[in-house]
This record gives sequence, C-alpha cells and structure tokens, in this order.
Amino acid sequence: MEYQFSRRVLELKPSAIREIFKYAADPQVISLSAGNPAPEAFPTSEISKISAQILAERPIDALQYGTTEGYTPLRRHLTEYLKEKSGIGTERDDLIITSGAQQIMDLFAKSVIDTGDTVLCESPSFLGALNTYRSYRAKLRGVPMEADGMSLEGLEQALKEEKRTKFIYTIPNFQNPTGATMSLAKRHGMYELAKKYGVMILEDNPYGDLRFAGEALPAIKSFDTEGIVLYAGTFSKVVAPGIRVGFAVGPKPVLQKMIVCKQGEDVHTNNWAQILCDELLTNYDFDSHLNRLRGVYRKKSKVAVDAMNRWLLPKITYQPIEGGLFFWCTLPEGSNMLEFVKRSIEHKVCVVPGNAFLTDDTKPSQSFRINYTTPTDENLVRGIQLLGEVACDMIP
Amino acid sequence: MEYQFSRRVLELKPSAIREIFKYAADPQVISLSAGNPAPEAFPTSEISKISAQILAERPIDALQYGTTEGYTPLRRHLTEYLKEKSGIGTERDDLIITSGAQQIMDLFAKSVIDTGDTVLCESPSFLGALNTYRSYRAKLRGVPMEADGMSLEGLEQALKEEKRTKFIYTIPNFQNPTGATMSLAKRHGMYELAKKYGVMILEDNPYGDLRFAGEALPAIKSFDTEGIVLYAGTFSKVVAPGIRVGFAVGPKPVLQKMIVCKQGEDVHTNNWAQILCDELLTNYDFDSHLNRLRGVYRKKSKVAVDAMNRWLLPKITYQPIEGGLFFWCTLPEGSNMLEFVKRSIEHKVCVVPGNAFLTDDTKPSQSFRINYTTPTDENLVRGIQLLGEVACDMIP
Repeated sequence: MEYQFSRRVLELKPSAIREIFKYAADPQVISLSAGNPAPEAFPTSEISKISAQILAERPIDALQYGTTEGYTPLRRHLTEYLKEKSGIGTERDDLIITSGAQQIMDLFAKSVIDTGDTVLCESPSFLGALNTYRSYRAKLRGVPMEADGMSLEGLEQALKEEKRTKFIYTIPNFQNPTGATMSLAKRHGMYELAKKYGVMILEDNPYGDLRFAGEALPAIKSFDTEGIVLYAGTFSKVVAPGIRVGFAVGPKPVLQKMIVCKQGEDVHTNNWAQILCDELLTNYDFDSHLNRLRGVYRKKSKVAVDAMNRWLLPKITYQPIEGGLFFWCTLPEGSNMLEFVKRSIEHKVCVVPGNAFLTDDTKPSQSFRINYTTPTDENLVRGIQLLGEVACDMIP
Repeated sequence: MEYQFSRRVLELKPSAIREIFKYAADPQVISLSAGNPAPEAFPTSEISKISAQILAERPIDALQYGTTEGYTPLRRHLTEYLKEKSGIGTERDDLIITSGAQQIMDLFAKSVIDTGDTVLCESPSFLGALNTYRSYRAKLRGVPMEADGMSLEGLEQALKEEKRTKFIYTIPNFQNPTGATMSLAKRHGMYELAKKYGVMILEDNPYGDLRFAGEALPAIKSFDTEGIVLYAGTFSKVVAPGIRVGFAVGPKPVLQKMIVCKQGEDVHTNNWAQILCDELLTNYDFDSHLNRLRGVYRKKSKVAVDAMNRWLLPKITYQPIEGGLFFWCTLPEGSNMLEFVKRSIEHKVCVVPGNAFLTDDTKPSQSFRINYTTPTDENLVRGIQLLGEVACDMIP
C-alpha cells in the first residue's frame, strides 16, 4: 500500500524540538528542554478531595456526554473571574472551554486560515502554535522580538506587506521562548495597529499568573472595544497540564465557528477536568493557591539565576525574567550554537536550540532556551554547571 | 470588525441535528434523539475507587504533561487485548490514544484529505464523522445501506467513478443510525474492493461490545494483511463518554502523521482518563463489566421493542437490532417525515429526522432515528406512545 497524505501534512517537517526530546527522555540526561510547569506547585491534595466529591456526588455529570462549548458553571464562573480580575470580556464576547490552550490555536486557525493566508508572529515564538498554523498551510511571518515585546515598526511593515494577514499571534507575558514581557505602550500600539489594518490578535496568555516579580500589565483583550482580540487562557500552568483544560474569550461569531470545529475534533473536553477547575475556582481559595505557586516559581527561578551567574556568565548571557517558565540564553557572536547544543547533550544536559522557535528554523540563532521549572533544584544547578563547562571548552 | 472566515468553515452549515437538540434540551420534551450510552451501565464505583488510588499514589502521572501518542501502559495493554480478543493489529500497525473516537475521524481526515478528495460512506451514516470530513472540504459520496451493510455493487460503482477516493468510512456493527450490522461476506468483500482500488478503510467500531444478541463477527481490521485499515475504537460506550478516550490501530506511517496533527490539536489526551481506562482494563474484571453492561442494554432494548410493537406497528416499522444504541424507524411511503418529526416535538417527544444522516440532507427520507438508552424506561415507553399517537393522527 502506498499511502497518500494530504499536502498539509506532507509540508510539516519533523520538528527540531522533537528530535531534542528524544535525548531528553534518556534518564541520564538532565533535561532543561521541557515546557513543564513545576509539579510541586500542583494543588494535588485539593484535586484529590474535589475529585472524590465529584465522583461520589454527581458521577453522571463527569461521565456522560457534555456540551461542546464547555461545562456551563465553569464558563459562567470564568467569565465573571476574568471580567473582575482582568477586565477581560465584553457584551460582544463569549467564553468556551477547550482541551488545553493548544486547541484554541487549532480551532482559531481552522476557522480563519485559508491556504497561503498570513499569520504574523513574534520571532522567535512558541513552536507548538507555529506548527498548528503551518498545518493549515498558513504563511508565517516573524516580526523581531525586542526586550519589551514585538517590534511595532516591524509589525507595521509586515502588515503593509502581507495583504492576506488574518491575525497577529502574541504571548505578551513571559513569552515562550524569550521570557520577555510586552510593555504597556506596545500592548496599546499592537491593538491600534490591528484595528488600523483590520486584522485580529490572538493573545496567548499561559504564563500571566506565574508572575513572581514586577507589576502585572493589563491584557490586550482588556482594551478590546472593537471585538478584534481572541484571548487564550489555560489551567495548564496554574492547576496542571495533564488535565488539558483551556479557555478562549472572543467575539461571538468567531467562537461560534470554533465550536463547530471543536464538535468535529473531540465533541467536548473531559468533564471531570472541567468540573475540577470549576470547584477549584469557586469553592477553594484560588488566589491563595496562585500566591503559593508564585512562591515556588520565585524560589526556583532564583536557584537558576544564581547558578547562571556562577557558571554561565560572562560567556553565556541571559535575559532576566519576572515570571513564566523559561530563560533565554545567548552565546557570543560568532559561536556555533547548534554545535554547543550537540556537545551539551554529549555532556548529558539538554536545552532547546533557538532556531527551533523561528518561522524558518534553517536560519541561524545564537540563543537557546532553558526551562528551570521541571528539574529538581539539584539537577537544575548541575545542568547549568554542565552548560558552563561546555561553554568553557568551546568558547575562547 | 468584519470577520473573515476560512472557506472550510463557511461551507459548513449548521446541522439539522443541532437544531433538533435545542428542542431536546427542553425538560418537558422526552428526548429520543441523543446518542448517549445508558448511564446506569457506567462503572461508577470502580471509577471512584481507581481515581482515588491514582490521585493518592501517583498524582504527577495524572497531572503533568504526557506524550502525544498516549499513556504507554494503556497503549501496550490495549494492543495485547485487541490482538488476543479480536485479532486486531499486526507488526506493521501501531496504536495511539485519542480524545474520543471523534478525534480519529479528524486526525485521519486531516492527514489524508486534500480539498475535493472523496470519502465513500454509508448512506445514511454518522453525522459527526461526515461533518468532520466536510470540514476538510472532502467530497462525500453516499453508498446505499442494506439490511446487511453497505451495498457492495454501489461501493464498486463509486470506486470506479470517484477517482480521488481516499477512504471508505464504515460502522460495521449496529451502525449509526440504522442499527444494521455488516455481514461477514460483505466485510470480506469491502476489504477486497479497498485492496483492488488502493483506498483505505476507516472502520469505526464504537458499538461492537454492546452486542446483546446474535454472534459477534470479526472486525475488517482482523483481515488486514496489507495495512489498509484504520480501526477506531473508544471507551465512550463501554466505560463513559465524558472521559473522552478513544484509540486508533493502523499502519505506522499513517499514525505517525496523525500524531503530528494531534500534537497541534490538543498535545495529548487527559492523563487521568487514560490511566483510569488502563486500570479498568488490567486490574478489574473488564469482561464481567461488559457482560453486565450488555444485560442493561438487552433489558432496555426489550422495553423499546415491546413499546414499538404496541404503539408504532404497523404504521411505523423498525429494524430489529442485536446491539448498539439506535432503532431506525420508517414511515409509510408517501408520508411527510419532517412534518411527523415537527408534530412529535409539539407533542413533546423528539427524534432525529433521517435526512440529517444523508450526505445531502436536502434529500428526502422516510425514516427517523430513536435512541433507547438515554431516557428512563418510563420516558422511553411514554415517548414511543406519543410517537404512535402522532402517527395515528397523521397517517391514514
């Protein structure tokens, strides 16, 4: 049998990051390449208690088919919570529950992208989202990242040139992979540019609640009087990723199309997980949980910073962060980053090469991404020390 | 803001069945229109016990990110179980876990369908699958259903005419909506035709384990020496649909593409639900559970049959079934089925009009679908009685 695949999947290359993860699965290798939240921050005992209660008191709610748009009480409570806490959501918006925020990328792209339409994204950006857009045969155009977010000059240039732009994809808080946070001025600027050029913004905010330093900035969605922003949130980083619960807030006509697509993809999201999130949000002190979690991340990021200061500087520099899961590290001009990553793996430590996050991953990059939240403190320090040793060997 | 949607979603019409479900949500209406398994057959206390154990003993397995292809022990145990019990799976095959069997329809269509490629399906067939294929802009061609499955003459005719056929979609056991089971001869015949014309078969078997009468027939996948069958299974009907766990067995190159698509859709399926299914399969007497469940369906279908014999015959006829969730009922030649369904809703009972399951739902149908598993016995009998009363009024 000669299998005949669709053009869309034939165009998808096996990603660089997947290859890296093969090495990361080796138990002898210290993986600083994951994107996992810190397991010690999971509200495990609360989840245990709530789960027992759900399955004892209303098993059928958890076990029977649910509605595609999501568990109604969770939708209502999240709508109120986001409105009150972050000014997100207007009369023209609705909220749906998805199987992780990844599904929002998929449903939105499926709803708006025809072959050859453009998505403008930060360069570098989250590989998982880029691959989803590619799977609908979107043209990706990267706009350079700066320390305070996407370059607005670059964005306007791209909007002028790319006539078939459907949306701008941005991660404004503790961006993956750079850790950068978009300034307030740029948030307003991006919104105004999207309005001016008649394109939508997909604001992906998985890490916003993981801020352990500095002041929180408003979501772009909170300025959205015109109905041009689709906001993607998730419980993956504040509760647990294995439960796969995300949520999208956006204009009703857009969400209606996404619901039709979701019906065809997985009918609805796991009910037990949805009820669990609703209970955590309403019958537990969710804000205290978030505070405790931020404490875990603050402490853990400090371990990474101390180790990087000791072992990486000055040869390898890193961007300071105020939250999120990642540090973006950069080798000196002219050094061979891919060779560095390869040698690091030989020394049993694994990071993600920066080119993996580019819209064209054959382009060069001097940077790599470190995740500090998955390894134990001991492995984190040891891993960074190993990176430092490789740098000493390689970089004069 | 003028929203610009993709051609694929603009072509999707709101489905007839969704409109019907609006009425079905009215608590005063007896719904015989759902596709829900009987909640009294859910292994609720086992799920409660296992869930407590998972969350106490290995919460991180349930809560951290998992692999896209699924929880490894479940994949291994299901592979052994399907091989041993049903002769499904060869060396060239692999098995992946999906978010319900619906996701298999989606991932497979996404992997093989280019705009305008043909899917050959039973006419009538499962609406949810047809809509997924439509969402990738497939051309659907219906092949008439007979009492023993798809017409093979019709199938060969279609294979000759439709040069861009990518696969045949079939539900061989207790088909949705007709309840029909494909004969052994036709299973072999369909396999041979697929081989001859070089197309794949998507064998969707959500109901196979719900057989309460007659002899089980082998899966088409069990003949598959050439690697042309993708088999879709699910825990939705034998455990519970709200947990959203399905599984696909198929040729490795096909599953590899589907895994790449799944990575972009939802990263992986809810881990708690996957571990739950693995425990039910390995540490509980799953076959006893299936026997108990078949007892529930046998008893409940008898209630429906007795009521239909009393209230529907001879004006409305129905196909006898040996398992599954549905009865396919037919009005006399020349009667107005859509009018009948409308009047039934006015009389507070809701069924699904047969045209909803056609590849072109503007074509006429004399039939409608009854689900007997969701309502209580009392409502089931009352609902069928109401249908009988409407028939008496309408049909001379």
